[in-house]
Parts: sequence; C-alpha cells; structure tokens
Amino acid sequence: MSTRLDLTQDVGELTARIVDVESVSGDEKALADAVEEALRLLPHLTVERDGESVVARTRLGRGERVVIAGHLDTVPVAGNLPSRVEGDLLYGCGTSDMKSGVAVALKLAAALPEPSRDVTYVFYDCEEIEAERNGLLRLSRRHPDWLAGDFAVLMEPTDGAIEGGCQGTLRAQIVTRGKRAHSARSWFGVNAIHAAQPVLAILNAYEARLPVVDGLEYHEGLNAVGIGGGVAGNVIPDECVVTVNYRFAPDLSLEEAQAHVSEVFEGYEVRFTDGAAAARPGLTHPVAAAFVDAVGGTPRAKLGWTDVSLFAGLGVPAVNYGPGDPNMAHQQGEFVSLKKIADCERGMLGWLS
Amino acid sequence: MSTRLDLTQDVGELTARIVDVESVSGDEKALADAVEEALRLLPHLTVERDGESVVARTRLGRGERVVIAGHLDTVPVAGNLPSRVEGDLLYGCGTSDMKSGVAVALKLAAALPEPSRDVTYVFYDCEEIEAERNGLLRLSRRHPDWLAGDFAVLMEPTDGAIEGGCQGTLRAQIVTRGKRAHSARSWFGVNAIHAAQPVLAILNAYEARLPVVDGLEYHEGLNAVGIGGGVAGNVIPDECVVTVNYRFAPDLSLEEAQAHVSEVFEGYEVRFTDGAAAARPGLTHPVAAAFVDAVGGTPRAKLGWTDVSLFAGLGVPAVNYGPGDPNMAHQQGEFVSLKKIADCERGMLGWLS
Repeated sequence: MSTRLDLTQDVGELTARIVDVESVSGDEKALADAVEEALRLLPHLTVERDGESVVARTRLGRGERVVIAGHLDTVPVAGNLPSRVEGDLLYGCGTSDMKSGVAVALKLAAALPEPSRDVTYVFYDCEEIEAERNGLLRLSRRHPDWLAGDFAVLMEPTDGAIEGGCQGTLRAQIVTRGKRAHSARSWFGVNAIHAAQPVLAILNAYEARLPVVDGLEYHEGLNAVGIGGGVAGNVIPDECVVTVNYRFAPDLSLEEAQAHVSEVFEGYEVRFTDGAAAARPGLTHPVAAAFVDAVGGTPRAKLGWTDVSLFAGLGVPAVNYGPGDPNMAHQQGEFVSLKKIADCERGMLGWLS
Repeated sequence: MSTRLDLTQDVGELTARIVDVESVSGDEKALADAVEEALRLLPHLTVERDGESVVARTRLGRGERVVIAGHLDTVPVAGNLPSRVEGDLLYGCGTSDMKSGVAVALKLAAALPEPSRDVTYVFYDCEEIEAERNGLLRLSRRHPDWLAGDFAVLMEPTDGAIEGGCQGTLRAQIVTRGKRAHSARSWFGVNAIHAAQPVLAILNAYEARLPVVDGLEYHEGLNAVGIGGGVAGNVIPDECVVTVNYRFAPDLSLEEAQAHVSEVFEGYEVRFTDGAAAARPGLTHPVAAAFVDAVGGTPRAKLGWTDVSLFAGLGVPAVNYGPGDPNMAHQQGEFVSLKKIADCERGMLGWLS
C-alpha cells in the first residue's frame, strides 16, 4: 500500500486515509514520511524534519506568525482499524485523537499559499507515551526557533470548543516515618502508617481554588493518588508514603505550586517527583482574539495538562481546538463527526484567509 | 564427616556437634537421621519417624505424660558455621534458636530411662518457614496421638525463663472504596485513600488490653502492618486497603478476636486473611506447677505467637522454656551461653528425675 497523501481530497476522506496509516507511538515513520513528502510538494513551504516530526513554515514576512500543531501518534490499536464510515461518523483508532486535527492542518497547509499570518505547521511523534519521549518537547529543546510564534493552536480533540491554556500538574510524596518493631510487641515501635492519618486529614480538609485567569475559570485539585506502607505482616512499619497530585491553575508557576504543597504539608518530609508547568490561555493577545472571533463559541479553561504548556514555556500562548470528541479519545469505539471536521476546517480557513 | 551423635557428651559439646550438622528449613534430613539413629539406640524409647520429624516416647505407664519439643531447622546460614567457642559463649547458626534446646532434650532422652513422668520427645522440621510446612502442624494432623500429653515444654529460646502460653494473631484487610476519575477533574470521583483517614483514626485511638490470664499479664496490640491504594499518578483511586494485625490474649478465641475486629471497624468492609489461635499458659495444672518449681524463676506471658498454640489446639497446655537468648535468634552473630544450657539441663533433669 502506498502511503502517498492527496491533500486535495475532502478533509473527511483525508482523515480516513491518515487513520489507515497505523502510527502507534514509537512507530510513526510511515506516516511522518507521507506527511513530509506531501508537504515538500508545496513550494510555498519550507520543510524541516527531526526524527519522526515534521515542521513546515510559510516565510511571507507577515507581522504575525501562528503555529498549528498536532501529534501523529495514537494509542495502541484495539481491533479498530481500518477506519469505517457510518453516516456522519468516521470510526477508527486516532479518528478523534487526533488525526482529524492533523488532516485539517494538512488541508490548511495545501490550501493557503498566502495565509493572512505566517503559519508554522508542526506534526510530531510520541505524545501518547511518557513525557520524556514527546516529540514536541524534543523540538522545543533542539529547535526552539522552529516553534517560534505569536500564538499556537494545538488541534487536540475539544469537540470544536476553544480550550484555553492548561492547568499544571505536580506529584509529591509525603513521607511519614516510624520505628520498626515486631507486631507482637508493637509498643516498642512507632507506626508510620498510623502517622499518615493527619496527612489524609489535611487532604480531606483541603479546599480547592477556582481562580479566574485571563477571563477563564480554572478548578484546582489536591489529591492522594497513591499510598504505600508496610514491611511484613508481623512488623510495625517504619515508613509510609502518600503520593499526592496537585493540579494547579496557570496563575501559579511550577515553583509556586511546589511551595504551596510544601506549605500545606508543613512539618512533613515532602519529595517532589515530577511536575509540569501550567499555561495561561493568552486569549488577550490580538491574534488570539481574532482566532476566537473566526471560529466562534465561548472559550473555556483547559483543566487537564496538555502540550500547550510546552508552547507556554517558549513564550507562545496556546489553545486546544480540534474537531474530535475528547470523551472518545483512547476508546475502542473511537470516532469523529465528519461534519465537525469540516466545521473546524472552515473556521480555521476563515481565520487565516 | 559422620553425623553420628554421642548423647553421653557434655550438653555444650553436643550442642556444638548438632549445630555443625547444617539443617536449614527443608534440608533437615542429615540431622533428623542422626537424631533418629541416636534415639533408636536407647531401648527405653519407642521411636517414630514422619518425614524429617522424629518422635520418641517412654512407655512406663506413669500417671502423667509430658512432651518436650524442639525444631531441628534453622534460618539460612550466614557465614556463621562451623560453630566456635569463645569463653562461655558458643557461636553459630542455630546455637540459640534452638539447637541448644534440642541438645538438652536429647540429653534427657538418654539420661532418663525411668523419668518420674512419661515423656514424649518431639524433634520436628520446617518451623522457620511458612506455617503450612511446619512439621509440628503436620504431626498434629497425621499423628495427633504421638503428641498427646498433660503438659508440653517447647524448648524455644527464652533465656532460661518460663514463657507461658502465647498470644493469638490475625490479619484483616479494612477496605475503603471510592470512584475513579481523572485527577485533572477530581471532583467527578470519590477518593478511597482519603476515605481511609477514619480507619487510621480508629487505630490511633485504639487502647490495647492488658488482661491477666491464668496469672500472667498479656499485652495486646492492633496495628496497621500494610496500606495500599492507587491506580495511576493521574487517577483518583477507587480502593484503599489497610491491613491490620491484631495480637490477642489467650482469653479470646480466634472467633472472638475476629468479632472484636469487626466491631472496631463497624461499617467498613473487613476481610480476614489469616489467623492463629492463642494458647492459655496452663500453669494452673499440677504437672506445670511442678515444672515451675523445678526450674525456678517467675513465669511471664509469651506475647509472640509460637507453636505452643498447636499443642493448645490438641488440648495440651504448653510453655516455652529454653537456654537460648531470643534476641540472638536469626542474627548473624547468634550465640548461646554454655552455662545457660547446663542450667537448663539441670532444671529439666530435676523435674523429671
């Protein structure tokens, strides 16, 4: 099967074509090759390649540059390929998350030789797996200049809504300590699991903030996502670890969020294990406002962490906006509405024409 | 090296001899063979064998029968064989736990052709590993008649003190449940780890009983020995399990102890995973009182669970009494005092002569 892509196809047909080129994380080469080949046929674009990521840019000297980005990979196939159409719905692995968004971006790349703003199209690998392998993270480290811009649209599934910014996330281990003893003589020990009671009490009493940032309301959360302790069935345990996950609004930096967690658990040993910054929605920027006008609807806050944060780290305000239904992402029965793909394409064309 | 045992040797020398026949749990054959061979040379004893356990009995028709028992196995050798003597101390794997006790029992078997009470000597395998493989448990199921008696002395290390009965032990899982949700939208879930706070509060507030049973004071304990919960770093967990260990005094049956735990955690899902009954000290029985008079000292309650409970299950009151130091058991630097071995032998001879 040739993997040549025809960017003059209808956007729904193009989505199906791309879905049928299997591209589970780490195995995106065939699709990345096809995307690169199709973009290199377009004389108005400069095309770059890094691993299985492809970046294509107009160089028209416009006063503004926008970035349109999407990942090429999918979660593992679950007997849901090849794609199939039923009425308005296209079924298959990656239809919603996020090959429909990739198809829209490719259509724009081909259809807009002279967009109203300079455009950078970014297609990257390994978004669905551990953060360290993320292609966009790699590009941001190796080629930050390729990602430069005034505003970015990440075409993740949002059901056609604009989701601004994203909340940050961090994980920390709250450690309680005790002293081991045989459980037949427990009074010679100090029970570290019992000592975790006030840690859980703090979590139960915690009141999450709902701050408004750049006009969008966020909703934080501080939760235990893991607890572990115990040496053996006859030993008073000397350590208990409560792992908490703090989801924080974009009015806090990662450092401020860590400081908050340290303060909440003051007096306890707190170990930060990982974290990712939040991103402000950036909808106050004129190019973002023009985008909102063009595609319509009321922007809402993005609560989950997404790659828009990587753009924020480069100083590029970013939003999520795509035709897929986020509730269908990673589902065996994943699908996308063909009408929503076409609506999304129309909105983006309107913004950039 | 021949494994023939000379029961006319001094009890300290005999201990060293037995220590040097390596017998880690599951690998007791050489020592069991040597014990059986030595006992079969004694015409006043009837000898039985089951696996690597050896039972020898006098059949004098006395009004009382006492059981003297010890296990042949040791924990794994830790570079602490062969044995060596430094002053009064004999060093080596199993010196304290409990080959010095085994040596005393073998000396009694040889020295007392006509003891004042009929005696059953029990040497068994696999005490140091999982309960299901315990040789005494196997004997109690296959040959309960071999273990019959009015009183039993288990020659485990007690530093020469009489430790009466033993506390029972049970483990239970206290389960809290919630509802999974993505931690970015935690308010759609119910956090099962947070729900474990009142379980830990119950444990922190618990006041352990110190009941007096047959004149000995016991000391109970109810403790968490394990806690686990968590699905993934970004998921509100739907289950948390607190594993508790209840050590209970011998005025409660296992069933009563379970009922107590159910009552303490009323309203929670409680799953009992394992349990072993307690044993009353039985020191009120005349043959036990004579034993206490003969060996001297003030009996104390045994808090840990030991094989005396298996005797209790057969209706035989039992105590722990042996020359080893329990604090040295399972240590790399394990040792026993030669004087304590001789004292123990003298006390037992006095009781049975």
